[in-house]
Amino acid sequence: MKIKERLDTLSDAIIAIIITIMVLEMPIEVKNGEINFADLFQTIGIFIVSFCFVANLWYQHAVVFAEVDEVSNKIIVMDLILMMFLALIPAFTRLMTTDTVKETVVMYGILYVIIIYIFRGIAKAIIHQKYTEKSDMQKVYVAIYGKHNTETGLLMLALIVLGWFFPKVALVFFIIIPIRSFIANSAD
Amino acid sequence: MKIKERLDTLSDAIIAIIITIMVLEMPIEVKNGEINFADLFQTIGIFIVSFCFVANLWYQHAVVFAEVDEVSNKIIVMDLILMMFLALIPAFTRLMTTDTVKETVVMYGILYVIIIYIFRGIAKAIIHQKYTEKSDMQKVYVAIYGKHNTETGLLMLALIVLGWFFPKVALVFFIIIPIRSFIANSAD
Amino acid sequence: MKIKERLDTLSDAIIAIIITIMVLEMPIEVKNGEINFADLFQTIGIFIVSFCFVANLWYQHAVVFAEVDEVSNKIIVMDLILMMFLALIPAFTRLMTTDTVKETVVMYGILYVIIIYIFRGIAKAIIHQKYTEKSDMQKVYVAIYGKHNTETGLLMLALIVLGWFFPKVALVFFIIIPIRSFIANSAD
Amino acid sequence: MKIKERLDTLSDAIIAIIITIMVLEMPIEVKNGEINFADLFQTIGIFIVSFCFVANLWYQHAVVFAEVDEVSNKIIVMDLILMMFLALIPAFTRLMTTDTVKETVVMYGILYVIIIYIFRGIAKAIIHQKYTEKSDMQKVYVAIYGKHNTETGLLMLALIVLGWFFPKVALVFFIIIPIRSFIANSAD
Repeated sequence: MKIKERLDTLSDAIIAIIITIMVLEMPIEVKNGEINFADLFQTIGIFIVSFCFVANLWYQHAVVFAEVDEVSNKIIVMDLILMMFLALIPAFTRLMTTDTVKETVVMYGILYVIIIYIFRGIAKAIIHQKYTEKSDMQKVYVAIYGKHNTETGLLMLALIVLGWFFPKVALVFFIIIPIRSFIANSAD
Repeated sequence: MKIKERLDTLSDAIIAIIITIMVLEMPIEVKNGEINFADLFQTIGIFIVSFCFVANLWYQHAVVFAEVDEVSNKIIVMDLILMMFLALIPAFTRLMTTDTVKETVVMYGILYVIIIYIFRGIAKAIIHQKYTEKSDMQKVYVAIYGKHNTETGLLMLALIVLGWFFPKVALVFFIIIPIRSFIANSAD
Repeated sequence: MKIKERLDTLSDAIIAIIITIMVLEMPIEVKNGEINFADLFQTIGIFIVSFCFVANLWYQHAVVFAEVDEVSNKIIVMDLILMMFLALIPAFTRLMTTDTVKETVVMYGILYVIIIYIFRGIAKAIIHQKYTEKSDMQKVYVAIYGKHNTETGLLMLALIVLGWFFPKVALVFFIIIPIRSFIANSAD
Repeated sequence: MKIKERLDTLSDAIIAIIITIMVLEMPIEVKNGEINFADLFQTIGIFIVSFCFVANLWYQHAVVFAEVDEVSNKIIVMDLILMMFLALIPAFTRLMTTDTVKETVVMYGILYVIIIYIFRGIAKAIIHQKYTEKSDMQKVYVAIYGKHNTETGLLMLALIVLGWFFPKVALVFFIIIPIRSFIANSAD
């Protein structure tokens, strides 16, 4: 297999593991013959949020990488660094939701922004490698991010600041945005 | 790779992890120099049941997705949502078998029905995308579900109701049906 | 992708996870500022033995499945059942080595024999599907099992009996045979 | 799929799991309503170092194996043995960083050298299988190891000796070298 194909396979495998790691970490168990349903549904809720974030990124990743048959060394290294940060998402989501204080929400927000920026760098590098016309680039960007992109860098930075003063309000936004983005991908 | 191929790879990787996660969660160990064989065989039994359910779904998934070379965005999002619910199967199976009460059996039944319905939605969307003749569709449906489909939605809903009043009886059906379906796939 | 290709990918992913699960289960840690080197090397030893067994089976599996482009439903189901039993190997190896008594050694031996027999059934079905000449079949069998096949069913049954009376002696054989088979594959 | 392709898929899956195993092992949690940030950042630091080592090896592996379409049985067995040792990296990195004494640093160093030597053996075997001209071989070597190769065997042996007398100094080198190598791959 070519390096590009192996990078795709590696990315798919890493993302698949990240998704299922979260289930492994879920404390679903019977204690003293009773199930704590509040805990159970909170746990499942966290899982669904992390899942939507990672699944959304996988979709965008697949759309971008389907554009080209070869990638430069720089893109390979950037993609691996993306995977490195993405692998931290389940742990940081769990941290934020079990203890919603300013430190955990801001840390999650920073990780979120890092991942989005690295991915945009990769997307830009790949698209500029293939297209020269602005209008062609625009089409691919719409395919990746949708028409109404809510994950703008500015919004994210605003959320980090919000998280410092009102962590619970920021938490709600950090939960809604990836779910909304993920569902929005279903539009053709 | 095209997005369809990457979706296949991602699905295979997720299903492979789901299958093997169950082994990781199995409490197979020697305590005070003794092996509790009753526990050991119960644990292995739960593993086999979960395995048959997931392996059966993998088979049906592979048959359906082999029909087409491209899938719409909507099918991609539906397939990812299917994987999300499928990832909960090991935890819910363990919950139901360690504490067979009405809550756990009904929860398992609901998850079971959700997964079956999402998969049927996907199968229908893919088959209607490819075929127009009723007779062709019928052939594919037989290849997926076999001739004597026991996993009908109505039966499942009846089992959930049964599970509320007689959890242990419903448990037996929830165990037998996926094993039967899985073995039935071996018929050509 | 065709179902055969997806079965290959699924098998590879499951085997990859089985191999690395063993590392996850290894109790490598510093206790009270000290490392127990005896435990550490025993743990690594168990890992190497399980690894050789699974890697050896992966190699034979890859050789057999490379022979054909399509497989029957029966072979698909048999292969999935093979994966189910294979997934139990790390847990059973750990059980046998941490508590070398007749029960654990015999259980390991039985699992070993089940896996070998299922795999042989699959290999036979695939080879008979493709070849009609006895001499051609013979060549593939040599490619899979090597010239001096030590994993004969009879030898294994003898080892199970041996394990009942002299568990530690049988343990040594169960350790040596997969390592020897694995290394023997390197011969062209 | 051919055996070479399956070996690629298996390697990718194993490496993907090794990378994400480290996150699973990370003790990121809230204790008594407080986060220990010193521990958290040390944990993330260890993860990044292990990641760079494994990602770097994946890159070199992908470059070498993209050179050929078929590999000999000997290379298959060598590659599987490489994976076996690679799977030990997360555990050994953790051991070395949680308890930086001469034993753990030297053990890590020895594992490091074993992995590098096995990989070089594989690279050499594949390149000599394909090329006969010295100048062609040189080009591939530069693509794999970069122009300024810091991972020379001699340096590593020197570090192991250093680790015996000054474990903390050697630790710093063992941390810097894989990060530097990994980043250096981005140069075209």
